[in-house]
Amino acid sequence: MLDFAQVVENRHSVRLFDGQPVPEDVVQRCLDMAMKSASSSNMQPWEFHWVRTPQIREELVKICFSQPAAKTAGELIVCVARTKAWDRVRLNTLEQLKKIKSEGFHVPDAAFDYYSQLAPKLYSVGLGGWLKRGYFFFKGLKQPTMRGPVNEADMKVWAIKSTSLACQTLMLAFQSEGYDSCPMEGFDPCRLKKLLNLPRDADTVMVLGVGKARPNGKALPRIRGERDWFVKIV
Amino acid sequence: MLDFAQVVENRHSVRLFDGQPVPEDVVQRCLDMAMKSASSSNMQPWEFHWVRTPQIREELVKICFSQPAAKTAGELIVCVARTKAWDRVRLNTLEQLKKIKSEGFHVPDAAFDYYSQLAPKLYSVGLGGWLKRGYFFFKGLKQPTMRGPVNEADMKVWAIKSTSLACQTLMLAFQSEGYDSCPMEGFDPCRLKKLLNLPRDADTVMVLGVGKARPNGKALPRIRGERDWFVKIV
Repeated sequence: MLDFAQVVENRHSVRLFDGQPVPEDVVQRCLDMAMKSASSSNMQPWEFHWVRTPQIREELVKICFSQPAAKTAGELIVCVARTKAWDRVRLNTLEQLKKIKSEGFHVPDAAFDYYSQLAPKLYSVGLGGWLKRGYFFFKGLKQPTMRGPVNEADMKVWAIKSTSLACQTLMLAFQSEGYDSCPMEGFDPCRLKKLLNLPRDADTVMVLGVGKARPNGKALPRIRGERDWFVKIV
Repeated sequence: MLDFAQVVENRHSVRLFDGQPVPEDVVQRCLDMAMKSASSSNMQPWEFHWVRTPQIREELVKICFSQPAAKTAGELIVCVARTKAWDRVRLNTLEQLKKIKSEGFHVPDAAFDYYSQLAPKLYSVGLGGWLKRGYFFFKGLKQPTMRGPVNEADMKVWAIKSTSLACQTLMLAFQSEGYDSCPMEGFDPCRLKKLLNLPRDADTVMVLGVGKARPNGKALPRIRGERDWFVKIV
């Protein structure tokens, strides 16, 4: 069993895998861990498309410009963020809250209000988004105020942020099971959306290659900038 | 020592902390782990502003609408994504690659080319962004093609994505040390940027509250949607 710090230390993007598939139970377990990540308002805007069909995989590798990490990975998982799938999650959360309450847990009324009333307003960004923007602006002159989401671009950031949290858990989960990974952003998102028949509100966050690194797969030491560029104490 | 799966299981956003500070060495160690996360082209576009000055903290709590998680957290860390801090990192990476090579490691020429030639073009999104967009469009008609980044919005997504990866490592790192966390998006980003004197290219990704949960701090069980909404096997 590895210490958490050792899992973090061992995770180092791999450009060359040994090509062997990852056991199904490992992948399923790691996906389950990923989905325990935090997400904005617990809306779980993520999707994980595990590509196992050889013909689809072949197309996916081309869409990743045939880069070695894609070609040699044991498994390829396309991580997707959805900006409009939250309503189903919201309704499910309401159901679950009711169930939890009926089991004797204390569920604050604010939680019911949030998921039944506030969340649908918060995440609606059509014409309402422009009205919200004006409202936020004037309210914000006087007091601390939310500033978004007011448009589709905000919702894209919203969904990608939570999905990325899950992606990192996924990479670390694989590492904890002894499998390396390579998060790839080098792909054609238009062709990828077509290949997987993704809906319009889907954003392809990364293609994750997973497998065992070849001995020379992660040859370089970890390179990082100066600590004080990134850590500020105020 | 906790199993990785147990760390993931234990992490559950907390709304109410016991208010006790987190030891400095724990925070520093967790920040170090966060910065070992993956990032796009290893550009490390993250910053972590650990707010320790009481007056600044007081302002920060107000900017978070005085929500209990902010008020009661032992520590508050503002996680920030930078869209224009990559050039310093890029130059540092080039230096490090030279050093690594001089120590006898094999560094592929492509790595030097990438950081000296390609990356500056890839991440420049002024007027060049529009030219790139046209180029990608026509090239993309015939073959798999990158589609971005072509504008500031793309760079924002780019920086927030990598920063979010680090945020999840940070939360899990604290959990592995026995500290709970609450990632907050409920804050006024305009006032927050002013409070911390952040540059124009900074995006406030989340305010992370950290500490020990009060016994009733995470009262509800974990709620998730149906697995097959999120996991697709293709």
